[in-house]
Amino acid sequence: MIPYPYPPIICNWHAGPTNRYFCRMITRPYTQLRQFAHDVFLQIGCPEEDARLAAEVLLHADLRGIDSHGLARLSGYVRLWEAGRVNSKPQVRLVHESPSTGVVDGEQGLGLVVGPKAMAIAIEKARTCGTGWVAVRNSNHFGIAGHHAMMALKEDMIGMAMTNASPLVAPTFSIERLLGTNPICVAIPAGEQPPFVADFATTTAANGKLEILQRKNKEAPLGWIQKKNGEPSTNPHELKEGGALIPLGSDRDHGSHKGFCLGAWVDIFSAVLSGANYGPWVPPFVSFLAPPSDPVGAGIGHFFGAMRVDAFRPTAEFKSHMDQWITRFRSAKTVAGQSAVVIPGDPEREAHAERLSQGIPLHESVEEDLKKLGERFKLKY
Amino acid sequence: MIPYPYPPIICNWHAGPTNRYFCRMITRPYTQLRQFAHDVFLQIGCPEEDARLAAEVLLHADLRGIDSHGLARLSGYVRLWEAGRVNSKPQVRLVHESPSTGVVDGEQGLGLVVGPKAMAIAIEKARTCGTGWVAVRNSNHFGIAGHHAMMALKEDMIGMAMTNASPLVAPTFSIERLLGTNPICVAIPAGEQPPFVADFATTTAANGKLEILQRKNKEAPLGWIQKKNGEPSTNPHELKEGGALIPLGSDRDHGSHKGFCLGAWVDIFSAVLSGANYGPWVPPFVSFLAPPSDPVGAGIGHFFGAMRVDAFRPTAEFKSHMDQWITRFRSAKTVAGQSAVVIPGDPEREAHAERLSQGIPLHESVEEDLKKLGERFKLKY
Repeated sequence: MIPYPYPPIICNWHAGPTNRYFCRMITRPYTQLRQFAHDVFLQIGCPEEDARLAAEVLLHADLRGIDSHGLARLSGYVRLWEAGRVNSKPQVRLVHESPSTGVVDGEQGLGLVVGPKAMAIAIEKARTCGTGWVAVRNSNHFGIAGHHAMMALKEDMIGMAMTNASPLVAPTFSIERLLGTNPICVAIPAGEQPPFVADFATTTAANGKLEILQRKNKEAPLGWIQKKNGEPSTNPHELKEGGALIPLGSDRDHGSHKGFCLGAWVDIFSAVLSGANYGPWVPPFVSFLAPPSDPVGAGIGHFFGAMRVDAFRPTAEFKSHMDQWITRFRSAKTVAGQSAVVIPGDPEREAHAERLSQGIPLHESVEEDLKKLGERFKLKY
Repeated sequence: MIPYPYPPIICNWHAGPTNRYFCRMITRPYTQLRQFAHDVFLQIGCPEEDARLAAEVLLHADLRGIDSHGLARLSGYVRLWEAGRVNSKPQVRLVHESPSTGVVDGEQGLGLVVGPKAMAIAIEKARTCGTGWVAVRNSNHFGIAGHHAMMALKEDMIGMAMTNASPLVAPTFSIERLLGTNPICVAIPAGEQPPFVADFATTTAANGKLEILQRKNKEAPLGWIQKKNGEPSTNPHELKEGGALIPLGSDRDHGSHKGFCLGAWVDIFSAVLSGANYGPWVPPFVSFLAPPSDPVGAGIGHFFGAMRVDAFRPTAEFKSHMDQWITRFRSAKTVAGQSAVVIPGDPEREAHAERLSQGIPLHESVEEDLKKLGERFKLKY
């Protein structure tokens, strides 16, 4: 058990390499924050093992520099629990299976708990079958896709994770928001090189990037957002006015229909295969918006995959070629002003190392949120 | 056997719904063209069954309106065979397997033949195991990814297909061409609705679109191409000057690093898993460019997947929800000037129906190419 609280390190206008925006940040040690999240999850009724798991998955986002998916969401999970939309004691069940597949019912649990348990089933199936694929229904927001996909790496497997999410994205030509930012992660082990970890929203920009612009009161580039009537917008508050995020590609000429394909693929694998809600029926993450009254499935959906590398090729051989792949791409000749091609996973790994040793910078609004949670549950923060 | 030649229907400045560019087109019946391609494949030494298969797969591109991947490439395949880079009598072999996976050596065969045979193995594995995943090495260009993925549909399976390709694409921040346009296809069966078929290059624009602009002598939109030094370009001939295609997203601000993730994912699954060449080592499709002298694998690589729908959920239930998904998205409110949201696969299916009944329009340069092939092999065209 790690004692807390540590004295916070207050750092005004923090702008370290993993914080690309300038604002008032308070840096606190990882272990303190993980313990706090764990204690909050215990308070909402999670069993000890689930509270530990949920805190670890949640904080993994903060460690990797994906601030929008970490502690910034803790109070949101609590509000969902208060609204009766999160079950803190789910019995995560395998309800359908074949040798290489399964469907898991998350019993309305935290995605932070349901996700890793479902991914563990995919890994187990891959052990005997070469690959394992698990679709999940009746779950909630699962943190970062990267956490779940990366579980496969230490087993010398390739991991995949995707999830659908609150509808904020308008397909090409649509003015209705029908898809979430529906991220995909593919994690691939290497040998001496660090693993390849591609973890990305299937929109031009993730919602977290808009939130940063909102806090900074800055305009978004054209191609991230559209107005209620479908016209381009640079207003980061446009979603509150009925606007929408745009699929990767930005517009039809630049391939937004391909971004739509990606988001749709994630939605169908996560929800139509599993029996979760899809498209505009996905329940919103925020508790102040009621889920649709005519659900087409249960909760939100995820999809996980694990592929044993040696089901294709001897592991050492594969890893040595992955090393060569990564080395070749990393050493490519670059455009003026850039020192190297960024291999997927590099920035997040650097953030992880830095934040584990130097603490996690929290935006002052997140710090306030956590303080209120501490007061509410009589936990020191 | 279908007799040929039919009299060609010459149609100047053809601009039907499936031909978005104006040029001199000659329309010929599908069956005539398929027979001609079949006879050419026989002439280069393919066994009857392989010639039939290769012609069917090749012409499937023309039927679906993806002209760049159909008959326009027939003379290219012949030149590769002349250069000793295509083996017309491959013994396509499964060289490694687990219950749900396999690796196929294409013995330098036509991808048009190797692809469907590998996909058939994936489907067979899915029958017993729920899913099947086959990586292929030592192959060549396989036509459209859609053909292979769609093989799964009639088995009530979801099909996936991807392939790496000649390096024409610069990753974000790179001025070197390290990836192909590396397409992905995901084909998902529905019930009363037609299937969902997303088939797309992981670049902003496929190379075929550049070829159209070259023929029309028109500029490309910014965001498709970069110059040799990485600066943006609108010149569709830029690749001849050392420029490159750009990953989906167009620039870093609009998510080109995500397009790079997609292309990299396809490259690694297709080639590092299978033992094919990857990245800049992928042999070029054009026969006048020699393959790299220091190969890291064999030929080009593909990756195929098949997932039995009922390995997740009863098929009828899944299909009924797919129908609801498709209907809801197709009926979304649209931006001014657009009548409907386009469901992935719609335009290609419409082209297929039109071209099957009315013939396949060929650009005059393709017509010339086919005539020369006819003369060379003493085949009537």
